[in-house]
Amino acid sequence: MGKGMYGPCKTTAEVLTLFTLQIIIFVLMGTLMTYGPQANAKMSREYIVQLPNAGDIQVYPNVHVMIWVGFGFLMTFLRKYGQSAVGLTFLVAAILVQVAILCQGVLYLTENSGKAPLSLLSLLSADVAVAAPLISMGALLGKTTYMQLICMGIIELIVYTINKHIGEKYFVAVDAGDSMYVHVFGAYFGLAVSFVFGLRNKPKNHHLEGANYQSDIFAMIGTIFLWLFWPSFNSASLHGDDQQRAIINTLLSISASCVMAFATSAVVSKDNKFNMVHIQNSTLAGGVAVGTAAGMMCEPVGALVIGAIAGVLSVLGYKYLTPLIQKVLKIHDTCGVHNLHGMPGVLAGLFGALMAGLATIEQYDYSLYEIFPARASSSMRTVNEIRAEYPVNPGQDRTASGQAGYQLLTLLVTLLVAIITGIITGYIINLPIFGTVPEEQYFDDAVNWELEEEEHEVKHKEQTNIEQLPMGHI
Amino acid sequence: MGKGMYGPCKTTAEVLTLFTLQIIIFVLMGTLMTYGPQANAKMSREYIVQLPNAGDIQVYPNVHVMIWVGFGFLMTFLRKYGQSAVGLTFLVAAILVQVAILCQGVLYLTENSGKAPLSLLSLLSADVAVAAPLISMGALLGKTTYMQLICMGIIELIVYTINKHIGEKYFVAVDAGDSMYVHVFGAYFGLAVSFVFGLRNKPKNHHLEGANYQSDIFAMIGTIFLWLFWPSFNSASLHGDDQQRAIINTLLSISASCVMAFATSAVVSKDNKFNMVHIQNSTLAGGVAVGTAAGMMCEPVGALVIGAIAGVLSVLGYKYLTPLIQKVLKIHDTCGVHNLHGMPGVLAGLFGALMAGLATIEQYDYSLYEIFPARASSSMRTVNEIRAEYPVNPGQDRTASGQAGYQLLTLLVTLLVAIITGIITGYIINLPIFGTVPEEQYFDDAVNWELEEEEHEVKHKEQTNIEQLPMGHI
Amino acid sequence: MGKGMYGPCKTTAEVLTLFTLQIIIFVLMGTLMTYGPQANAKMSREYIVQLPNAGDIQVYPNVHVMIWVGFGFLMTFLRKYGQSAVGLTFLVAAILVQVAILCQGVLYLTENSGKAPLSLLSLLSADVAVAAPLISMGALLGKTTYMQLICMGIIELIVYTINKHIGEKYFVAVDAGDSMYVHVFGAYFGLAVSFVFGLRNKPKNHHLEGANYQSDIFAMIGTIFLWLFWPSFNSASLHGDDQQRAIINTLLSISASCVMAFATSAVVSKDNKFNMVHIQNSTLAGGVAVGTAAGMMCEPVGALVIGAIAGVLSVLGYKYLTPLIQKVLKIHDTCGVHNLHGMPGVLAGLFGALMAGLATIEQYDYSLYEIFPARASSSMRTVNEIRAEYPVNPGQDRTASGQAGYQLLTLLVTLLVAIITGIITGYIINLPIFGTVPEEQYFDDAVNWELEEEEHEVKHKEQTNIEQLPMGHI
Repeated sequence: MGKGMYGPCKTTAEVLTLFTLQIIIFVLMGTLMTYGPQANAKMSREYIVQLPNAGDIQVYPNVHVMIWVGFGFLMTFLRKYGQSAVGLTFLVAAILVQVAILCQGVLYLTENSGKAPLSLLSLLSADVAVAAPLISMGALLGKTTYMQLICMGIIELIVYTINKHIGEKYFVAVDAGDSMYVHVFGAYFGLAVSFVFGLRNKPKNHHLEGANYQSDIFAMIGTIFLWLFWPSFNSASLHGDDQQRAIINTLLSISASCVMAFATSAVVSKDNKFNMVHIQNSTLAGGVAVGTAAGMMCEPVGALVIGAIAGVLSVLGYKYLTPLIQKVLKIHDTCGVHNLHGMPGVLAGLFGALMAGLATIEQYDYSLYEIFPARASSSMRTVNEIRAEYPVNPGQDRTASGQAGYQLLTLLVTLLVAIITGIITGYIINLPIFGTVPEEQYFDDAVNWELEEEEHEVKHKEQTNIEQLPMGHI
Repeated sequence: MGKGMYGPCKTTAEVLTLFTLQIIIFVLMGTLMTYGPQANAKMSREYIVQLPNAGDIQVYPNVHVMIWVGFGFLMTFLRKYGQSAVGLTFLVAAILVQVAILCQGVLYLTENSGKAPLSLLSLLSADVAVAAPLISMGALLGKTTYMQLICMGIIELIVYTINKHIGEKYFVAVDAGDSMYVHVFGAYFGLAVSFVFGLRNKPKNHHLEGANYQSDIFAMIGTIFLWLFWPSFNSASLHGDDQQRAIINTLLSISASCVMAFATSAVVSKDNKFNMVHIQNSTLAGGVAVGTAAGMMCEPVGALVIGAIAGVLSVLGYKYLTPLIQKVLKIHDTCGVHNLHGMPGVLAGLFGALMAGLATIEQYDYSLYEIFPARASSSMRTVNEIRAEYPVNPGQDRTASGQAGYQLLTLLVTLLVAIITGIITGYIINLPIFGTVPEEQYFDDAVNWELEEEEHEVKHKEQTNIEQLPMGHI
Repeated sequence: MGKGMYGPCKTTAEVLTLFTLQIIIFVLMGTLMTYGPQANAKMSREYIVQLPNAGDIQVYPNVHVMIWVGFGFLMTFLRKYGQSAVGLTFLVAAILVQVAILCQGVLYLTENSGKAPLSLLSLLSADVAVAAPLISMGALLGKTTYMQLICMGIIELIVYTINKHIGEKYFVAVDAGDSMYVHVFGAYFGLAVSFVFGLRNKPKNHHLEGANYQSDIFAMIGTIFLWLFWPSFNSASLHGDDQQRAIINTLLSISASCVMAFATSAVVSKDNKFNMVHIQNSTLAGGVAVGTAAGMMCEPVGALVIGAIAGVLSVLGYKYLTPLIQKVLKIHDTCGVHNLHGMPGVLAGLFGALMAGLATIEQYDYSLYEIFPARASSSMRTVNEIRAEYPVNPGQDRTASGQAGYQLLTLLVTLLVAIITGIITGYIINLPIFGTVPEEQYFDDAVNWELEEEEHEVKHKEQTNIEQLPMGHI
């Protein structure tokens, strides 16, 4: 296995694992999945086709943009790792969206027979699921091979599916914007993996670990698209008034976090200027922090306050906590996912529990039982009385504080599962078969890409010196 | 209050105004606003939830993209002010969208009691409102502190809300795409503020006032997204056939202005080449110019012609009028908002008045009274006859020429209000508490941002000279 | 007619053709087109306004983004032709979208009297049509004047309209994602034009024919938006379960092609790294390859496999076929449209024929006759029996293999028409009146644009040497 000047040369055998992986997906998809009734020509008579409502068909492309444009460009901030940021997000997410569909399918087949159905909603859920490994990727950006990322992502999606299933089915926890299932899980899983990677030398700044003027603007493409479509993300699984409320709450929360991130950045930075890292990331913290409670009646001012807290907390995290974690716990976090997804996600879980604990039938009317299904009466008779006015299913007679407890339990379980399985995954992807990037080649696109410029620079240097300068500008 | 080499150092006290502002918003939002019935869990039985129609829920994310991606990136054209362009648009718009929601709320509360309702449509209206101060910001880009921009924006939104309310309620003027309320108002308000800023030295070109190759491409991201979603903007407040007509008219008008802007740019530029400033801006003039009449029956060819005129006018404005205004009136207009929003907006107002003056019952059938509500009969009996076939409210018996007159009046009032309040605002934001940017630091990101590059450049210069050159390219 | 150091100076007369063109469009649009009933105020009583369904109104902005952002930025990969890539796409598409609307109108008027109707669906069809000349432009990028591109586009749209009409009306061929009508047609038309342009010198690499680090990232903006919204493109003309199926099939196919393009790129590139050209283009091949059959029951695994084949084929095309075509056939293909649109389009046609040949009533139930209208019975009695359960029109009693045959015939005719009319068009646009770009000025933005940088570079060089270096970076 040869090593060039740049990057760990991959053997062709290694490369073939990508083919193998896609072929395994063929087999599983062929064996397990088929079109769901909404997408199946044969069902058009037997089944009255439920058109996706306006909300669903709108939300899907927006979430789609968040995953590939949002995450992809957000990570282009490193001055010499932009092609990998957007390129590897592209590759990793394209594989994992297929894996996420299969995970859903397998989950369906544990309880049903035949083949698992595919619909527009499956694709939407798969996009949401893929966000978790992309968040973890943020903690590891620039330090892994793409096969390490892919392997991590596959394991993570399996655990994610199980953890979310436990939360939704057994704990009947509410998490509209998936702040616990996606953000907390993805962040702490990634940090756990990064912990295993460790810091071989003592903490220092790598010479390529930083932005430049252009890369910071590219990253803002990601930030802005994430910020814009976050209301779609948080309202993706809701309908009717819940969906509108989630859009409003998220817009308010993420606006407040934007303002507070700027304000706090100016306070903690030199000369009271703004710091691009804070602006690119902490402005989004309000979208995470309101996620769990997005569909609840937290009132406009509640959404604003939780977003503002998240914005402040996130910037302080970048300034003080990240260096501390790196120094004390030896966990390196390239994009600072702990500040954008980790802490705001925990905040979301706590705020969700609080709102759940405060939810009363006076405030929500019967839609309380739609938002918190476990709070409905388990007695068929009581349910049937309500059903005359409002569609409700029998629940578990849960009280408000009971629901709050289960919300907290879900947050705790998610944290534990993420950290434990993350550490295990860290050891797995450090196995030699996935390759490894030497520390001196961290954050360098040359590891993954045939860089165009290297060649013509040399060519031009040889030719003329006068022409080379203007060329270089471009 | 120390001053570094770059930029006016802000004191921490100054920075705290951002926090204060957000906290005032908390209090007002908590006191004044609550969820509207469409977004309120409690209303789900009492109120038959009106689902937002397919158009509304589609239009909102598109307008959202225009405000933050469109305006933000359009202004990245300056070679050394790209981070501020996109970053300050982000901050300013995030505060102002909350302020705009509050302005709507206060307006509602002048006529109603209780709390003002929030819905998806409130958010859409708030986004549209925010466009006005962002247009004004274009005239001032690179010359103000962010607190000056924010203060200007808050005053502007209050005046905007009142002016639009007068136009809509008292003059019953039609302005589907808000060409008068947003574009004319925003442009002349900004120019009036810029007039107060003045040109301290004699007009000259600042060494940073210009684009470079990369920044011109970044700006095209803004141009293209604005161009693409302008049909959504102009049709945002319409429904049914009016909405489709507005989409068609806007697409045709903005296509014609794009072609004519290219053609005129080639005629007036050296060697008949294209000029990026014209292409980035004047291609959009057709979207403004058709705005007022977007929902009217101007026929496809009418939309094309008005767009084409706007495209030509806008490029000629950049070439001949802007230098003249700078020389004679001492008004500096960084982005040339007079050419993109000012003149095309006035054109829109005139074209809207013309189309309103030509509108007949033969051409529109009863939907005349939907588009121009004041033209409906004030007699309940006549209205009731029509209502058997078409939903109409009693109006003011206005004639076509009466409606045209009110359209012109609205344009005139908007212009006057914008200029007068703009000048006053200019003096207010020049108060010392908002800070000020010295003229030699205009158009420089270093005023607002901790720039990454400065540091590592120095580091690399010290280390090696050979490595530094390829680094710099990236 | 003077010639500057850079670029063929256009005479003002030449430039005036753009004005003339837009004026001709005014006349034709005024003579031929009016609002369709869905967009006409007058029809609001006579005609029950059909609201566009959620799908349509969603799909239009997405396709719109693909055309201008997708194609525009995809072509910014050349290091010194980015402004032309995005700028000329902007100009050319803005003219051609109007021409495409007129072509549809003329086609309508060959069979109807009065004026041709405009609706949201007309705009959507026009956007789809414009994709064909933009694909052809990819083969010619950097080698033509903009008047050559526009002239080519107008001819191409006329032929496109006729060819698609023959395919849809006379052959009753199915091509949901327009893989034959748009991709095959656009690619081979462009290659035929490029063949006429020829290679005046022996094949060599132009010193500007290549990317740099930044331009490669800009191009990824185009790639990602095309990739994201391809499901919208392929499902644009479908409804209900067909539309959902097309979205699912396209997402799966384009995901598989993304993975396979990465995998194959690593296999064929030096040191098993990835090559940006492959990633920018071949990742999209699956969207093309599944286009014809997007609405058919090819099962999830079928969509994955066809996408994977297209991804592999496309990268191999870039690596081996493009150099061969350039050497042997003397056809230069700047963007490699043969690999992204040509071959995958032919593959789509073959796969569509295969799926059509396999389609049975058992698999599709009566919706077989909706997807393949010619397969319905021509007997009114049989049709009426079905109609009791499902809306069907009388067809042509076609068998499955008959349908497959017509699919292949359509592919063949499209190929022939594209190549023959492309060669003729190549000769037409080489007429002197359209201007010409000398080979040494290929791929150079200076031909079309007043470049900002040239000026200030000189200015700065004169002033100081110390300041110039940091400036240049930005």
